[in-house]
Amino acid sequence: MLTDQTTVPPPTTAPLFGGVEGGGTKFVCIVGRGPDDVVAEARIATTTPDATLSEAVAFFRAESARHGGLAAIGVGSFGPVDLHEGSPTWGYITTTPKAGWEHTDVAGPLKRGLGVPVAFDTDVNAAALGEGRWGAARGLDSFVYLTVGTGIGGGGLLDGRLMHGLVHPEMGHILVPHDRTIDPFPGVCPFHGDCLEGLATGPALLARWGQPAESLPHDHPAWALEARYIALGLVTLTCTLSPQRIILGGGVMEQLHLFPLIRREVVTRLNGYLRASEILDGIDRFIVPPGLGNRSGRLGALAMAEHLVRA
Amino acid sequence: MLTDQTTVPPPTTAPLFGGVEGGGTKFVCIVGRGPDDVVAEARIATTTPDATLSEAVAFFRAESARHGGLAAIGVGSFGPVDLHEGSPTWGYITTTPKAGWEHTDVAGPLKRGLGVPVAFDTDVNAAALGEGRWGAARGLDSFVYLTVGTGIGGGGLLDGRLMHGLVHPEMGHILVPHDRTIDPFPGVCPFHGDCLEGLATGPALLARWGQPAESLPHDHPAWALEARYIALGLVTLTCTLSPQRIILGGGVMEQLHLFPLIRREVVTRLNGYLRASEILDGIDRFIVPPGLGNRSGRLGALAMAEHLVRA
Repeated sequence: MLTDQTTVPPPTTAPLFGGVEGGGTKFVCIVGRGPDDVVAEARIATTTPDATLSEAVAFFRAESARHGGLAAIGVGSFGPVDLHEGSPTWGYITTTPKAGWEHTDVAGPLKRGLGVPVAFDTDVNAAALGEGRWGAARGLDSFVYLTVGTGIGGGGLLDGRLMHGLVHPEMGHILVPHDRTIDPFPGVCPFHGDCLEGLATGPALLARWGQPAESLPHDHPAWALEARYIALGLVTLTCTLSPQRIILGGGVMEQLHLFPLIRREVVTRLNGYLRASEILDGIDRFIVPPGLGNRSGRLGALAMAEHLVRA
Repeated sequence: MLTDQTTVPPPTTAPLFGGVEGGGTKFVCIVGRGPDDVVAEARIATTTPDATLSEAVAFFRAESARHGGLAAIGVGSFGPVDLHEGSPTWGYITTTPKAGWEHTDVAGPLKRGLGVPVAFDTDVNAAALGEGRWGAARGLDSFVYLTVGTGIGGGGLLDGRLMHGLVHPEMGHILVPHDRTIDPFPGVCPFHGDCLEGLATGPALLARWGQPAESLPHDHPAWALEARYIALGLVTLTCTLSPQRIILGGGVMEQLHLFPLIRREVVTRLNGYLRASEILDGIDRFIVPPGLGNRSGRLGALAMAEHLVRA
C-alpha cells in the first residue's frame, strides 16, 4: 500500500554541503543539509589565513571521507570582501583592519583544497539567506538581516536576490540623528564617529556606560537609548529598502527586552506614513529575532552552497 | 553592395510605445521609441482622475491613429501606489494626500481604454529606468535615482531589477543628523518633521529662508546647508544600497552648483571607509545629474512599456 510505504523514510540521498561562517575570532565550519541535519561542526580559531584555511580544508576532507562527498561549499565571510564575479580578487577579504587578513583569498584555497564549487558572500548576506531558507524570513523575497554586536552589519534579499551592488551594503555605517544634548557620547566608529555603528554596537555601549551591555540592568537608561538608535536606523532602512521583515541578530540583540522598545520607537517615528498593515498592525512580526538563533550565518552558508548547485 | 545598402536607413518597423509621467500637477504623455524618436507629446493638467485619464486615453488614441498602434504603455506615477502583482488594487494610487486621487485606478482606465498592456511603477522608478536605458546609468545594474524638488523620492535598480519590496522605497523620509545649534529649522514633513524631505525639499528651503530656492544667490549659506543634508542622505543610501552611481534630479538639483558641494561632503563623510575607486577617485562620475534632463520620467515610462513587451 502506498500509504504504508510512505511512512517509511527513504534513505537520504540528498546531497551534502559544507558551510563556513568566517568571523574575525573564529571560523565555524559545518557539514550537513539543513538545521536539523548537521552531521559535523568545527570551530577553528582565526589566526593566520594559512593556518585557519588549512584547518578548514582538513576538516571538510575528514568529514567527506566519513559522510560522503560535498556537492559544494558556501562561505559567509567577515569583510569587506570582493563579490564581483569575474574580478581577479573575487572571494577575497579586501581591506579589513584584521591584521594579516588584508587581501586574503578565502574562496580559492577551499576550492583548490577540496575540488568543489564554492559560493562566497558576506557573513550578513549568508545569515540573511539562512533565515530566508529555514528561519524567520521563510517565504519572503524582500527582507533585511541586521546584526548588532561588536559591529553592525546588514544584508538581505531584495526581490529574491542577495543585495550586492558596487561593494556590498555597509548598513552599520548609515547616519542617524544624534542629539548631543541627550547623549553627548561622540561614538566609537574610527571612520565616522557617531554613525549607527559608532553609537549602538556593544563596544559603544561599553565605552558610553563603562560596563559591558550584558551587565546593565533592564531598567538602565542605556537600553532606551540603544533601542532609539537602532529604531532610527530601522526607520531609514525601511524607507530605503521597503523590506517585508527585519531580522535583528547579534550579541546585543540577545537582550530580547530591546525588541518591544525598538518596535514601539519605529512605529512612533514612522508615524503612520507607510500604510502597510505589516507595520501598522503587525510590528511584532515585522521586527523579529532570528529564527535560527546564532546559527543563521553557518546555516546560511550551507544554503549558499545548496543554491549554487541548484542554480 | 552590403556596405552601400546599410547606409540607407531601413523603414522603421520597431514598435511604438506610450509613456505617462503622472505627476500631481500634470500628466506628461508621450508616444515614441526613445529620446531621439518621440513622435508626440501632451501635457494634461492633473484635475480629477476621470478627466485627466480620459484626456490621456484620447491623446493615445489620436496618436495611434496617426502613427500606428502602440505595443504597450508605461506609467510612472506619483504615489504612494500599489505595485503588488496579483493585488486587486495593482496599478492604483493609494493613500495620496492629493485631493480626489486617493484609491484611484490609474493603470485600469488606460488598459481598458486602449486595449494594450500597461506597465506601472513609481515616478522615480520610471525615471531610474529611463536613466538606465538611455541616460546617465547606461550599462549599470545597481544605481539610485533621487529627485529633490517639491518632495524627495528615490528609486533605482539593484542587480538589474527595479526596487520594490513591501510597499516601495520612500527614500525622502530617511532620517539624517540634524544639528539644531546650526540649523534650528524644525523641518516641513507633516509626518516626520526633520526627515531628509522635511529639511531639504524646495518647500523646506522656502520656509527656512523666506524666499524660493532659485532666488537665493550661489554664495548664500542656504546652499552649503542644502548640500550637507543631501550628502548626509547619500552617505546613508550608499551604505545601504551600495549603488554604482547616484543620479540627482528634480527642481532643486537644477542648481548645478550644488553638485560639487554635495560630492565634497559625501567624500568627507564617508572618510575613506568604502574602498571603491568609483567613490575615492571618481566622485564626479558617482554623483551626477540626469542624462535625460527633466525627461527621465516620461522616457522611463516608455522604457517600462518596451520592457513589458520584451520580457
